[in-house]
Amino acid sequence: MDRDLLLRELSDFLRIPSVSTLPAHNQDCRRAADWLGAALRALGCPKVEFLGSETHPVVWGVGPEVPGAPTLLIYGHYDVQPPDPLGEWTTPPFEPTVRDGRLYARGAADDKGQVFCLLKAIEAAGKPAVNFRFLIEGEEEHGSQVLFDLLKREPQRVAADAVLVADMSYVAPGWPAVYSTLRGLCYGEITVRTSKTDLHSGEYGGAAPNAHEELCRLLTRLKSENGHINIPGFYSAVKRPSKAELAAWKKLPFKEKDFLEKRVQGKGLVGLKKYSVLERLWALPTFEIHGILGGFTGEGAKTVIPAEATAKVSMRLVPSQKLKTVERQLTAAVKRFAPKYVTATVRFLHGADPAQITLTDASFQKLDAAFKSVLGRGTVPARAGGSIPVVPALASAGAPVILTGIGLPDDRLHAPNEKLELKQLWDGIEVFRKFYELLGKNGVR
Amino acid sequence: MDRDLLLRELSDFLRIPSVSTLPAHNQDCRRAADWLGAALRALGCPKVEFLGSETHPVVWGVGPEVPGAPTLLIYGHYDVQPPDPLGEWTTPPFEPTVRDGRLYARGAADDKGQVFCLLKAIEAAGKPAVNFRFLIEGEEEHGSQVLFDLLKREPQRVAADAVLVADMSYVAPGWPAVYSTLRGLCYGEITVRTSKTDLHSGEYGGAAPNAHEELCRLLTRLKSENGHINIPGFYSAVKRPSKAELAAWKKLPFKEKDFLEKRVQGKGLVGLKKYSVLERLWALPTFEIHGILGGFTGEGAKTVIPAEATAKVSMRLVPSQKLKTVERQLTAAVKRFAPKYVTATVRFLHGADPAQITLTDASFQKLDAAFKSVLGRGTVPARAGGSIPVVPALASAGAPVILTGIGLPDDRLHAPNEKLELKQLWDGIEVFRKFYELLGKNGVR
Repeated sequence: MDRDLLLRELSDFLRIPSVSTLPAHNQDCRRAADWLGAALRALGCPKVEFLGSETHPVVWGVGPEVPGAPTLLIYGHYDVQPPDPLGEWTTPPFEPTVRDGRLYARGAADDKGQVFCLLKAIEAAGKPAVNFRFLIEGEEEHGSQVLFDLLKREPQRVAADAVLVADMSYVAPGWPAVYSTLRGLCYGEITVRTSKTDLHSGEYGGAAPNAHEELCRLLTRLKSENGHINIPGFYSAVKRPSKAELAAWKKLPFKEKDFLEKRVQGKGLVGLKKYSVLERLWALPTFEIHGILGGFTGEGAKTVIPAEATAKVSMRLVPSQKLKTVERQLTAAVKRFAPKYVTATVRFLHGADPAQITLTDASFQKLDAAFKSVLGRGTVPARAGGSIPVVPALASAGAPVILTGIGLPDDRLHAPNEKLELKQLWDGIEVFRKFYELLGKNGVR
Repeated sequence: MDRDLLLRELSDFLRIPSVSTLPAHNQDCRRAADWLGAALRALGCPKVEFLGSETHPVVWGVGPEVPGAPTLLIYGHYDVQPPDPLGEWTTPPFEPTVRDGRLYARGAADDKGQVFCLLKAIEAAGKPAVNFRFLIEGEEEHGSQVLFDLLKREPQRVAADAVLVADMSYVAPGWPAVYSTLRGLCYGEITVRTSKTDLHSGEYGGAAPNAHEELCRLLTRLKSENGHINIPGFYSAVKRPSKAELAAWKKLPFKEKDFLEKRVQGKGLVGLKKYSVLERLWALPTFEIHGILGGFTGEGAKTVIPAEATAKVSMRLVPSQKLKTVERQLTAAVKRFAPKYVTATVRFLHGADPAQITLTDASFQKLDAAFKSVLGRGTVPARAGGSIPVVPALASAGAPVILTGIGLPDDRLHAPNEKLELKQLWDGIEVFRKFYELLGKNGVR
């Protein structure tokens, strides 16, 4: 295939700032959906539909029918995370740029570059004996509501012999993976109010409560210095991985020192030190603060005692935690830990249950063989720290969900300077071409 | 005097959004200075100068010379605090509006309305036997740098028999006051950095440090739940008021319940409970958080682990604390309380030493008499929780600094719906008219 042409095509897709959480980008999301629709038609799909939303539609495609061949449903998303802080990008997030064999752009790895890889692998395969279905959504970074609604109305859309989700990464360069769990997500805003209006710190300082101070104190009560989350009941549904699984992780090419120095690029790691870093990332829930609103954050020196402060927070959930239970637990903990003179409330914005997948279906062996043929190494079983909210719904018709991908752990998803290594893309096209061929040759089961 | 006309004139002054901390309002600050220059000329000042800055000049005026009469230097400021949060104003901050005998606008009490009162009292007095000097600055809310520089170059500007600063309030309706101390201010930004860039909470959550979490924890270490500020050495220079002073405060019409319910409008007070609320407000230092920057604070749900978080904080200082010492103490405490894996720094934006004034000069008795003649009650000695950074410089030539004013404690300085009661303005014009007459009749000393 003409790699220069492929790169130009992918760059066109990446140039569209399809940030689903920001209403200002609604039309950009629609443009990204239209770009995909055209790509599916170019692959020979007789049927392409835009479903459920004018601005963030699910793009549904049905490939050319191959009687008797297995059905593979390809899931991905064309929306991306907001690009801020903009100042930390070396080149602008929506001006795709190649440096040192890496393609830098918001969405390069999460998930436009991976969707592009799966589509181009079909083109590369010629006419594989697979009945393709495509379900590419535009709200993965914003709760997947349109897709959830669609699958509630029309659950047969996910009827297939296998579902392929390439929104993941290798565990290390040269080490492709399939994932057996995804963490869930519970995202909300905790708001603290201490007085009717902001107050002058000269007139009131020393006796009036300060909303930011109370919020900081509340947040530190919710999570201790040692990484323990103090929400009552929070850990009760959490199960440790089996000894065999923990032993397998020890063999992965993961070094805590490299993780700190090359990926976090900080001075130390945190969290529950009695568990390994991989267990903390893959098998334990989290509590993170994303930002704090309220008070005065402009230039200069305004001496106000803020009346209200809001923290954007989220928890990653692991099997067998339940989103609804955790929402109740957080609300109760906030009420319990806030002092009586403070009004504290929680509003939930977005969430997903964790997902668990059994890796026994024959399709996993075919993927393993495809990777082995291209890289010389097959897939290792791993867990994922991130969330893809719609995975449980994709599994609802009984098809195995294959969570894999061509990213690398240092791709800086959701952060400045997100990138995709071109080697990963070119290898990925080869791997999935092979995978489609293996599926078509022997059937899925 | 024609009160409708006075109100129109004051409204013209208040309509100018002279927010000194926001560069976008530089030209508005200059317009406010020009408005004042014209007002001084209308009072018959043969000499009006704009000193030290094109955009935030000190307005200097010299009144008509009265040989042998005492010299009174009037200090005030024409700049105002930023008006946000805008949504909490009943009517817009720069559209002065009278409701129920109150004039609502940013600057109505702090300090344009008070400057206006002092000027109109001169007009009301006809030609009092006083040599007036005016020093009205445009950066009181932003560190007074222009004025400090001016007084360093030309300290003789503050040579006078007395300095009158009307930027204060009564202690309660009907209870005018003079103030013997002002708290100082130490305003800075504490920044915490935990990684090179923001990180994805799915990929890194559980093991990577979170800048907002570390900042919250650091802030709660700097100040305990009980209101104690834990900066080592912070309280060592703080002196308790004398027993006589504390006893006098008990006689003031100040009720903690009213302070909570009518002024704070919250559910409880905080601070060092072993001291009275007045002592906490007037004689103890503070530590306040004004706002927290960094991470994601937009709409929606971005799941980022912030790499950097900054808190805008300030401390009010009391005699005999020193700004420079407190800056060193905070910097040392931040280094000490931040964990090793965090880079924590402090940047200072603005500050003032506290001020202490002896209330023995004869001019204080004349002011007392002026209030008594108009209100039937003279001035009570009090302390001020706020700061006027330039007061020590105003006192540097040896003149007594009379800190008084026509505001009320519930004027909501620096907050939404700032107001000035019209009765306070009309009484104030009468009081200062009388004060100027008494000064001129007997001389200052």
